Amino acid sequence: MEALKQRIRKDGIVKEGNVLKVDSFLNHQLDIQLFEQMGEEFKRRFEGEEINKILTIEASGIAIACIVARYFNVPVVFAKKSKTKNIAGDVYTSRVESFTHGKVYDIMVSKDFLNPEDKVLIIDDFLANGKALIGLSQIVEDAGATLVGAGIAIEKGFQRGGDLLREIGVRVESLAIVEEMDVEKGIVFRETNQ
Amino acid sequence: MEALKQRIRKDGIVKEGNVLKVDSFLNHQLDIQLFEQMGEEFKRRFEGEEINKILTIEASGIAIACIVARYFNVPVVFAKKSKTKNIAGDVYTSRVESFTHGKVYDIMVSKDFLNPEDKVLIIDDFLANGKALIGLSQIVEDAGATLVGAGIAIEKGFQRGGDLLREIGVRVESLAIVEEMDVEKGIVFRETNQ
Repeated sequence: MEALKQRIRKDGIVKEGNVLKVDSFLNHQLDIQLFEQMGEEFKRRFEGEEINKILTIEASGIAIACIVARYFNVPVVFAKKSKTKNIAGDVYTSRVESFTHGKVYDIMVSKDFLNPEDKVLIIDDFLANGKALIGLSQIVEDAGATLVGAGIAIEKGFQRGGDLLREIGVRVESLAIVEEMDVEKGIVFRETNQ
Repeated sequence: MEALKQRIRKDGIVKEGNVLKVDSFLNHQLDIQLFEQMGEEFKRRFEGEEINKILTIEASGIAIACIVARYFNVPVVFAKKSKTKNIAGDVYTSRVESFTHGKVYDIMVSKDFLNPEDKVLIIDDFLANGKALIGLSQIVEDAGATLVGAGIAIEKGFQRGGDLLREIGVRVESLAIVEEMDVEKGIVFRETNQ
């Protein structure tokens, strides 16, 4: 998606340790108009697919998921990262290793909000090693629901999570795939047909 | 806001310990259409006010804030609850005691995203003892920005945070104020003019 790539080129900051800082528009300050363009683009890519629920993970995934959900006219469910006293009853859980936070955590979704009739689109802001997406896919599978695909804003193509998931048959649609990035040389995007 | 009150009556579950469970539509599964009605209502209530930024706090506040932001055509900034390696540089911080999680945590906003020119509307899903709202207000003040007001989905009126904030001059607009709630007797809303 050209508008997103341009924005990453303009405002993204590459830092040591394969960190791409996009917090001025994607995951700390949120550019809602850009998210609406992303929603339109995901709607175009998943046109014709039956989708009745969007699944994401706290925190920054929620922002994009909510705007995208408007284009599909479906509710959002977000996986929580810690057990609070407001989640009662049975939950689906999965373990995720975070690249950004450098730690392992459990994610959970109440069994009330995913069931075998659900056709699920996963939305997230980043895809790197794919661990969050695998964790969410596991929860969809545990619920007996159908995973239609995953819509990602920025994929770090060089970290291979997206390619591994595609190889096992998950439909992953990323709006911008970073093929290479370097503090001095900047960002090279993967050439795609979209 | 009648639609929200009706939804709370229909799907909200009152639990021991002053917990109101609304996770089927407000803070785990998210009813985006209801959030759009809430956005329209906040826009109506803050009509004529100059607002150029919405501030909220992760995680469930983000969902409502993003949809509400569409009606004001402004970006959202969300306060983060833990320091990740993606937040670099200077941050505004404040300490918050969470009713839901029963613990104390620090919230932070990068200094890049709040400045003295900002006219800020705070949006959150719940207001109980007001600690999160006070923490966010403190951050707005530290940035030298102007706090226009706070838009809250559900206020627990009996926990007094909202009334205390109104007494010190903060404009707090809550779409549903729960005056009393009881596992057996259910929910009584505060009578308001709106």
